[in-house]
Amino acid sequence: MTKDAATDALVIFTPSGKRGRVALGTPVLTAARQLGVDLDSVCGGRGICSKCQIAPGYGEFAKHGVTVSADALSPVNAVEERYDRVRGLKPGRRLGCQACIMGDVVLDVPPESQVHRQVIRKSAAERVMAMDPATRLYYVEVAEPDMHDPTGDFQRLAAALENQWQISGISADLKVLRELQKGLRKGDWKVTLAVHRDQTGRTRLIDLWPGFRDAPLYGLAIDLGSTTIAGHLVDLTDGRVLASSGLMNPQIRFGEDLMSRVSYVMMNPGGDVQMTAAARDALNTLAEALAIEGGVTARDIVEAVIVCNPVMHHLLLGIDPVELGQAPFALASSDSLHLACTEIGMTALNASARSYILPLIAGHVGADCAAVALSEAPETRKDLSLIVDVGTNAEILLGNSSRVLACSSPTGPAFEGAQISAGQRAAPGAIERIEIDPVTKEPRFRVIGSDLWSDEPGFAEAVAASGITGICGSGIIEAVAEMRMAGLLDGSGLIGGPDQTGTARTEPTGRTFAYLIHDATASGGPRITVTQGDIRAIQLAKSALYAGARLLMDEMGVETVDRVVLAGAFGAHISPKHAMVLGMIPDVPLDKVTSAGNAAGTGARMALCSVAARAAIEAQVRRISKIETAIAPRFQEHFVAANAIPHATDPFPELARIVTLPDVSFNTNGAGGGDGAGRRRRRG
Amino acid sequence: MTKDAATDALVIFTPSGKRGRVALGTPVLTAARQLGVDLDSVCGGRGICSKCQIAPGYGEFAKHGVTVSADALSPVNAVEERYDRVRGLKPGRRLGCQACIMGDVVLDVPPESQVHRQVIRKSAAERVMAMDPATRLYYVEVAEPDMHDPTGDFQRLAAALENQWQISGISADLKVLRELQKGLRKGDWKVTLAVHRDQTGRTRLIDLWPGFRDAPLYGLAIDLGSTTIAGHLVDLTDGRVLASSGLMNPQIRFGEDLMSRVSYVMMNPGGDVQMTAAARDALNTLAEALAIEGGVTARDIVEAVIVCNPVMHHLLLGIDPVELGQAPFALASSDSLHLACTEIGMTALNASARSYILPLIAGHVGADCAAVALSEAPETRKDLSLIVDVGTNAEILLGNSSRVLACSSPTGPAFEGAQISAGQRAAPGAIERIEIDPVTKEPRFRVIGSDLWSDEPGFAEAVAASGITGICGSGIIEAVAEMRMAGLLDGSGLIGGPDQTGTARTEPTGRTFAYLIHDATASGGPRITVTQGDIRAIQLAKSALYAGARLLMDEMGVETVDRVVLAGAFGAHISPKHAMVLGMIPDVPLDKVTSAGNAAGTGARMALCSVAARAAIEAQVRRISKIETAIAPRFQEHFVAANAIPHATDPFPELARIVTLPDVSFNTNGAGGGDGAGRRRRRG
Repeated sequence: MTKDAATDALVIFTPSGKRGRVALGTPVLTAARQLGVDLDSVCGGRGICSKCQIAPGYGEFAKHGVTVSADALSPVNAVEERYDRVRGLKPGRRLGCQACIMGDVVLDVPPESQVHRQVIRKSAAERVMAMDPATRLYYVEVAEPDMHDPTGDFQRLAAALENQWQISGISADLKVLRELQKGLRKGDWKVTLAVHRDQTGRTRLIDLWPGFRDAPLYGLAIDLGSTTIAGHLVDLTDGRVLASSGLMNPQIRFGEDLMSRVSYVMMNPGGDVQMTAAARDALNTLAEALAIEGGVTARDIVEAVIVCNPVMHHLLLGIDPVELGQAPFALASSDSLHLACTEIGMTALNASARSYILPLIAGHVGADCAAVALSEAPETRKDLSLIVDVGTNAEILLGNSSRVLACSSPTGPAFEGAQISAGQRAAPGAIERIEIDPVTKEPRFRVIGSDLWSDEPGFAEAVAASGITGICGSGIIEAVAEMRMAGLLDGSGLIGGPDQTGTARTEPTGRTFAYLIHDATASGGPRITVTQGDIRAIQLAKSALYAGARLLMDEMGVETVDRVVLAGAFGAHISPKHAMVLGMIPDVPLDKVTSAGNAAGTGARMALCSVAARAAIEAQVRRISKIETAIAPRFQEHFVAANAIPHATDPFPELARIVTLPDVSFNTNGAGGGDGAGRRRRRG
Repeated sequence: MTKDAATDALVIFTPSGKRGRVALGTPVLTAARQLGVDLDSVCGGRGICSKCQIAPGYGEFAKHGVTVSADALSPVNAVEERYDRVRGLKPGRRLGCQACIMGDVVLDVPPESQVHRQVIRKSAAERVMAMDPATRLYYVEVAEPDMHDPTGDFQRLAAALENQWQISGISADLKVLRELQKGLRKGDWKVTLAVHRDQTGRTRLIDLWPGFRDAPLYGLAIDLGSTTIAGHLVDLTDGRVLASSGLMNPQIRFGEDLMSRVSYVMMNPGGDVQMTAAARDALNTLAEALAIEGGVTARDIVEAVIVCNPVMHHLLLGIDPVELGQAPFALASSDSLHLACTEIGMTALNASARSYILPLIAGHVGADCAAVALSEAPETRKDLSLIVDVGTNAEILLGNSSRVLACSSPTGPAFEGAQISAGQRAAPGAIERIEIDPVTKEPRFRVIGSDLWSDEPGFAEAVAASGITGICGSGIIEAVAEMRMAGLLDGSGLIGGPDQTGTARTEPTGRTFAYLIHDATASGGPRITVTQGDIRAIQLAKSALYAGARLLMDEMGVETVDRVVLAGAFGAHISPKHAMVLGMIPDVPLDKVTSAGNAAGTGARMALCSVAARAAIEAQVRRISKIETAIAPRFQEHFVAANAIPHATDPFPELARIVTLPDVSFNTNGAGGGDGAGRRRRRG
C-alpha cells in the first residue's frame, strides 16, 4: 500500500463488517461513530472509561482485501500508557478515543466494547440478553456559571449533555435538582450522569456523581405473582444477575387466590388500600434483600421492571380491582406504564429510580403473560408454538410468525395443590414425583428435599426432617396419570374398587374409592390418598387448560401444534408424559414439549436490559389476538369434551407410541359398603 | 342568488372575516372548524353545552358582497328548541352544532363563543385577558368495554378524546386512573374531562366528571413575595377574578429579607427545609382561603401559576438557596417549570392539579420580574420603557421593540419603610402622604385608613382607632422630597438646623438634625421624625435604583427614556413628582410616569389564562439581555454620582418645569449643641 500521497484510509470494523474511508488522523472512536459502528464510551473520548477498547489486526486480511501495516494506528500515547499503568489494558488492545487511524486498518470491537452487546452467560440455560438499557452513564464537563450569561446550573448541564453526547431535551425531577448544585461543585463541574431514556425518546436525569463514575448501575426485574414475588438484581451494563430472591406475597392473608382477594375488596371497603400497601412493602423488602445480597447500595439501583397479572397490577397501582372480578373484566388501563418508583411506593431504590410495567394483554391475561411472550417470542418462529403458563389461571399463547393468539383459562388452583385432599404447596415434605407399578399397583414416590425414591435405602432417614406432608401440584398430576396408566382409573376418571383393580390400595370412601399412596402409620405424618374428589378437581383443571388451548387452535384453524412450551416455575416440574396422559396438553412428540422455566421473569429481565425489547413487546401485545374464554361458546364444548383422561375428542398417536393405556371402565356401583367399610379397612 | 343548482354556499364569519365555501347541509360548527374559525365547543357538537352559539345576519351585506336569505340556515331543530326551553337562548342566536348552512350566510361569533376570547372587564384598570387556558373541559362518549377487544378503560377514553376532539397522546397519573372506572360507569360512559395541555403539546388527564359538566374550572395566580404572598382565584373560561387574598410570608420569622434567609440556611443546616415547609403551608392556607372566598371546591381548582424571586423559587422547590447568596449567584435551574402541584406540596387543590412557574431571568432577577415583563411587554412598543418593580431588590427592565435589558439593584428595604427610624409597613396608622408648606415649613399628612389630611376637621377622630404609628415607604419618599422642596434639605441630603431653615421643626439630634413631622404629645402614639440617618438610607436606596436604571441606559446607549412604569403594590403609591425630586427615576414628563399596579400578579394571571402567554414569556426571557450590577464597574460610579437629591449627574429639565428646588447648602457645623440641646428642645 502506498500511503505517502493518501489523505484518507480504509477502516474495517469487525465483527460488524462495517467499512469506510476516514481522514488520516481520525480517532477510532470518531471513525466508529461516522460509520455507525456500535462502539461504547462513557467518558466521551477523554481516555477515562476505557469502554471504547478495540483490538487492531495487523498483516494481510485476504477476506477484506486489505493489508494492515504496523503503523496503521498512531503510537500508544501518554493517556493510554497511563491507563495501562493504572488500570491495565489487555495485550493488543487500544483505547478507541486515543488511537488515530494513520493507514488502512482492520479493527475488532470486542463484545465488552459494544453498547448493544449480546451477553452470553456461562450457563446454557441462561438467556442471551440484548443490552440496550434505558438508563446509562454519561460523563460530562459542564460550563461554570457566568454572571454575564446567567443560566441555571441545570440548563448548562443539559447543554453539556447535548453538546458532548447529542442528548437533548433532558428533564429532571425536583429530587435531582436539589442535589445538582452540590454535585457539580464537588466534581469541579465534571460529573457522571445517569440518564434514563424511555422508548418514546424522553430523557430524564436520574442522578449524578462528582467526577467520572467507574461503576455500573443496577436494575430490578420483578415478577409480582399472586403467591410469590420473585426478583433479580441485574447489572445494567452486561445483564448479569447479581442476586435473586423471593418472598411470599403478603396479600395471601387477604385471600389465597386472585378472585378471593377481589372479593375481599368488595366485602371490605378500603381492602384494596391494605393490599396495595402490603404489595408495596413486600417490593421494598425484596429490593433491600437483593441490594444486600448483591452488595450494592440502594442509590445505584436506578430501574425496576415489573410483570404481574391484571389483579396484582391494579392492586400495586392502587386501583380498585373490582371490575376485574366480573364480566366484562374491564382493565382500568392496559398499556405499559412508565412511573417514578416512588409513585408505586418503591422507596428502597435510587430516589429518582424509574419503573416500567409491561402492558396487560387482556382482563385475565397480564403483563406476566406479555413477559412470557417477550421471552418465548413465538412470532419469531415458523413452527406453531403452544405456550402455557400454568398457575391459578393458565395463560395460553398460540402462535407463529404469521399470528399469535392469547387467552386465559380458569384452571383454578388444583394444579398448585390447592383443593386437593392431601394437596400442598411445593415445599420440603411434599410428594413431587410418583410411579405406580402397573402389575403390583404399588406406588413409589419422591418428596421435595430428597433425591431418593421412597423404596430406596435411606429414604426414611432422608425425609425424617421434613416428614411426608402432602402432594404438590406436579405430584398430583403424576399420581393421576400413573393411576390411569396402572389401570386404577378409567378413561372417565373413575377410580376402580379393589375388586376391579386387584389392589386393596383403592379403598372405599363413601360411594367412591381413593388410592392410598402413603399410610401415616408407616412413617408418621398424614395419611395421603388420591380421592375421587381429587381426580374430579384435576379433571376440571386440565379440561379448562385444554379447552383454552383448543379454543386458540380453533381460532388459528389448526388441529395440531408443533411444540408445547411449559412456562412458569410449576411448568418446569411437570413431566411432559404425564401431562399428555392426563390430557392437559395436545398430543405432540415428547421431545417437542419443553420447559421455559420462569419465562415471565426472563421477559422482565429482557425488558430491564433493553428499551428495544420494551418497544417490541408493546407492539407485539397490540398485535396479539385476544380470545376471551368466558364468552366463547366453543370453550364450554371443549371443556366438557376434555373431561376424559386423556380426553376423547382428539387422537393421541404420539402418546400411543410410548404408553399403552389400559382399556378399563369402572362405575361407582363397585364401591364397597360406604363410609363404615372404608373406616374399617383403614383401621385394619 | 340562485341556489337551486348549488351544492355549496359561501359562509362568512365575523368578526374574524374568515370566509369559504362549504357543502350545503354542513353544520356551522363543522364549517367553522374547516375554515379555522375560533368557535368554542365543550360537548363536541351534541347540543348540550351551547358554547358554539352564533348570531346569523340576514339581508344584504354590501361590505361582504352577499345577500343572506331567511332560509340560509336550517330551521331551528328540536335540540335547539329544547335548549331554548330549558336554559334559554338569546334572541337571534343559534347553536352552531345544530344549525346547518343551506345558503350564503354571514355568521357572527359573539365573544363568549370564542375559544381564545379577549375578555374585557368592566373596570378600565383591569387587564384584557387573552384566554387560551392550559386546562379545558371536553365532553366525550367512551366506548364500553368489549371482551372481544379487551383494551383498558383509559385507552378507550384516550381513543374517544382523539376521535371526538383530535387530542392524541394523553397521559394520566395514578390518582386519575384510580377514579377512572367509577366515573365512567357513573356517567354511563359519558364523561367530561379536564385535559391539561402544556406549551410543549403534552396532554394530561387531570380529572373527569360523570356526564356533561356545565361549570367552569378555576386556577390560582400566585405572587410569592418575600414579605407577602398574594393570590387570585381565576375562572379559566373567562379570566374573571373571583377572589383575591394575601397573607404574610411565614418565612419572615427566619429573616426579614432574602439575604438574611439565605444566611439562616448557611447558619442552620436544615433551615431550608423549615422554610420550604413554611412557604408550602402558606400556599395551602392561601388556596383554602381563596376557595372559600370564591365559593368553589378544591377539586375544581386545577392549575396554579406561581411567580417569585429566585430565593423564594428555590425555597419553594426545596432547593438550598445558598448559591444565590454569593457570586456568581448561580441558579439551580432557570427555565420555567411544569410540576404536579403535589410536588411542591400544594395539596389544597385538585389532586392532579398542575403548576407552572415562570422562568427566572438571572440570579437576582426572578420569575416575578418575568411576569412584569409579560404584563408590561416593553418589546411590543416602539418607545423606550423603563419598568421598575420596587421592593427589597429593585428589578429593572429597559427596552423597546428592538431590545430589552434587565437587571436587579440592591436597594435594600428602605423603600418599604424598614431601616427608617419611624418606618413601618403600609398598614392603618402609617403616614403615606406628606406635604410641607414651603413658607411655614409646617407639615400636613394623611395616614392609611383615612382620606382626611391632618389639618382637616375630623382628622383626629378619623385616626383615633389606628393612631398615627409611623411612616410607610411611600410616606418617607414624599417626606424626603417635600423636605428638599421646602428647603429643609440641601442637594447633598443634609438637613438644615433651625437657624438655617427658620423652623424649630428641624431639631438637633446629636451632630445632625431631624425634621419633626408629628409630635407624640399632640394625639398620642410615637413621636415621628425624619432623621439624617433616614435621609441617608433613602439616598442609598434611591442611588442603587437609579444606578441600575442608568446602567441599563448605558448598555442601551441612551441618555433618556420615553416613559417610566412603576410596578409593584408599592409603585402604585409612589408619587411620580416626589420620585423624580428624589432622583429615584430619570427625568421624564410627569405624564409619562405611570403605575402598572401589581404587574407581577397581572403577569401571573396572564400566564394562568394562556398557554401562548407562557410560550411568549419563555421566549422573551431568553431574548432579554441580563446585566449583573454586582460586576459592572459603572454601577459603582453611577451609584456614587446618584447620591445627591436629585442626583447631580443628569439634568432634570422636565422636573424644572413643574418645581423649583431651593438652592440651599447646609453643613453639620450648623447643628445645635448636641444631644443635650436636642433633648431640651424636645421637652420644650
